[in-house]
Amino acid sequence: MTAPLRIGLAGLGTVGAGLVTVLQTHGELLAARAGRPLELVAVSARSRSRDRGVDLSAYDWEDDPVALAAREDIDLLVEVMGGEDGPAKVATEAALSGGRHVVTANKAMMARHGTALAALAEEHDAALRFEAAVAGGIPIVKALNEGMAANRINRVLGVMNGTCNYILTQMEKTGGSYDDILAEAQLLGYAEADPAFDVGGQDAAQKLALLAAIAFGTQVDYDGMTIEGIEKITLTDIRYAADLGYKIKLLGVAGRTEDGIENRMQPCLVPEASPLGQLDGVTNMVVLEGDFVGQTVYQGPGAGAGPTASAVMADIIDIARGLTGPAFGQPAATLAAPHTAGAPTEASYYLRMALADRPGSFAQVADALGRAGISIDRMRQTKHESDAAPVLIITHACARHDLEKAMGRITALEVSTEPPVAYRIENV
Amino acid sequence: MTAPLRIGLAGLGTVGAGLVTVLQTHGELLAARAGRPLELVAVSARSRSRDRGVDLSAYDWEDDPVALAAREDIDLLVEVMGGEDGPAKVATEAALSGGRHVVTANKAMMARHGTALAALAEEHDAALRFEAAVAGGIPIVKALNEGMAANRINRVLGVMNGTCNYILTQMEKTGGSYDDILAEAQLLGYAEADPAFDVGGQDAAQKLALLAAIAFGTQVDYDGMTIEGIEKITLTDIRYAADLGYKIKLLGVAGRTEDGIENRMQPCLVPEASPLGQLDGVTNMVVLEGDFVGQTVYQGPGAGAGPTASAVMADIIDIARGLTGPAFGQPAATLAAPHTAGAPTEASYYLRMALADRPGSFAQVADALGRAGISIDRMRQTKHESDAAPVLIITHACARHDLEKAMGRITALEVSTEPPVAYRIENV
Repeated sequence: MTAPLRIGLAGLGTVGAGLVTVLQTHGELLAARAGRPLELVAVSARSRSRDRGVDLSAYDWEDDPVALAAREDIDLLVEVMGGEDGPAKVATEAALSGGRHVVTANKAMMARHGTALAALAEEHDAALRFEAAVAGGIPIVKALNEGMAANRINRVLGVMNGTCNYILTQMEKTGGSYDDILAEAQLLGYAEADPAFDVGGQDAAQKLALLAAIAFGTQVDYDGMTIEGIEKITLTDIRYAADLGYKIKLLGVAGRTEDGIENRMQPCLVPEASPLGQLDGVTNMVVLEGDFVGQTVYQGPGAGAGPTASAVMADIIDIARGLTGPAFGQPAATLAAPHTAGAPTEASYYLRMALADRPGSFAQVADALGRAGISIDRMRQTKHESDAAPVLIITHACARHDLEKAMGRITALEVSTEPPVAYRIENV
Repeated sequence: MTAPLRIGLAGLGTVGAGLVTVLQTHGELLAARAGRPLELVAVSARSRSRDRGVDLSAYDWEDDPVALAAREDIDLLVEVMGGEDGPAKVATEAALSGGRHVVTANKAMMARHGTALAALAEEHDAALRFEAAVAGGIPIVKALNEGMAANRINRVLGVMNGTCNYILTQMEKTGGSYDDILAEAQLLGYAEADPAFDVGGQDAAQKLALLAAIAFGTQVDYDGMTIEGIEKITLTDIRYAADLGYKIKLLGVAGRTEDGIENRMQPCLVPEASPLGQLDGVTNMVVLEGDFVGQTVYQGPGAGAGPTASAVMADIIDIARGLTGPAFGQPAATLAAPHTAGAPTEASYYLRMALADRPGSFAQVADALGRAGISIDRMRQTKHESDAAPVLIITHACARHDLEKAMGRITALEVSTEPPVAYRIENV
């Protein structure tokens, strides 16, 4: 058995403490699998005195994570402090510059600085790995980077934010409003006190940006993403979508199109009978589509101490086993500049309107759609008690800008009692 | 970029030809990902003249796969000939003994000789990898061996034979009999002319035996598996199970119990709403349960040229990247002797009986169950036109041998018009 892999751990929050627990619980098993002992040498966090439920007495303490990253007696830095810039980035750079491997769970940092950090790692023959940054306990970076390596990847899509999926499924199950269910999710610890980053789609978009870089061999391009959150989704639309055989999901889609790479994180309708449509609660699911393998699907816990620590440890073991190649599957210098598609691919849309309940109302809507070149696949006017009739339309595949043109006209109609609502229907 | 990885390919059936196609289609992409060119040097198959739809003129030809395996100018042998013993095994041994890596899709060979071949590989510092042997295009060996490496694995379960899953789902959908749907599957190429190995459960059991070895750190133990096929499953039971909210699946379960490792491949009922219950057609699904990560689920195509070649190529790229560790995740010498559990863990069972339609019939069945210590969770007597009433029982968790005792007594009852049928209900 070769020399131990010596680890420095920066960050002792949920994930950091979870990692210590994994190491203390499975020391022998991990060594057998890694082919060498994994030795935690030193740790660093903001407060030394805080009780984290794990015994840290065997490890050196560093107040400064950057000092930890530069210690001569560590081979690998685990960065689980979080934060896009600041100490996490400085410590990561310090470790890599010293030729030390880095395993991080920090999606914000990787989504912003992933390409540069990957290049820095390669320059110093160090590994940079980030399995825990995407979809928690699901080994999706590995599946994409290694398991699918034989394929040209055509599309990566999935539900990558458990908070949003919990809120949407609970709204449907209980009939609660968005605000009520969000408050409940906060009580249960499924949503942060400030949930904006989750429900606004940014958290999931960071994860998708990382997968897209691997999938398409491009530099990480968080800024090139179209992001829309779930804040405006109403129980009404969830119920109508269900009546039509769909679920509303905060869906990330990174796809190869004729016009470049399309990167979208937005609420979409997916067929109820599809794996994504069946996904309830805080669980995550990612679908990978490759030219030779076809479609593979991955499901599991997207967050939590155990799953995230499991992912961090898998990266550590890979490095211990000698897998120290490029972070994004090919050298950073060979990653192409992102070529973002100009407009989303055509799709069917779910369109909900409220129309004054009088003769000729629908004719005006049909005219507005027709003039924008949009044809109707299915139409349904539902039972109503108010003066305005709820009208649902599933369009045939159309361009988003044509749809928006039509929606503008519909909004302007005198018979239209509220602005129409549209969601893309994703083929999955 | 380092030297090319030089490959010899033994076997030019569907998978072998598929691999050549992948190499010819994605040469540059594969080299970028592997960090070095992948160069196919020589091929071998039984017939040189057969048209396989791929151009083989650039490669040396070897009539003898063992001669191919021993060539000084290859670094890696791809073995996709198949067969438990014979040329596949001899060629694999020849390659490994010469310090050449082997990537195989041969589950039969690995299920029988996996431990010995892994030891031989390690002795000669060669890698032995077999992703394509289990669940086709799903990177499940990788997920288990690497992605879950931080966890003590408690259970591996899944649907690993597409033929069986196709037959069972088509029976339910079309109302066809087992024989009719099998014939249809043969026409469609989903079932072999001699389907015994698929429908008998052996094919799936070989796959499960390989996953169990990795999951529990034991020697491969195909002989320790309990195997039961789908040949006796009737449309009647599929329909009744559906009425009760279940699907019948050929389910493999490898689990850690107090009494050792339980390895079963048998028809089971799973809840309709579970991921496994939702799995239709030829697709495979594997569920991994680890102590820190919880449950992760993997779904994808279990067979076919593209998916299988994708898995073979992923192994090749891993080796090119330097991942040449032990085949089963830890050195073969450290794999424990299999300790097979004596009896299956307790479970609820689905029990179907046919009872003479007269007073007191059910009382006798209830008595037989009661005397074996089995209590009833749910009971249903369905509408019938014949003299015999179909009676369905879902038991509370009980031991299999108690159930068999009760079934023996029920069979012997004069009111019992046919032997009872029982299927285990698996918690998934």
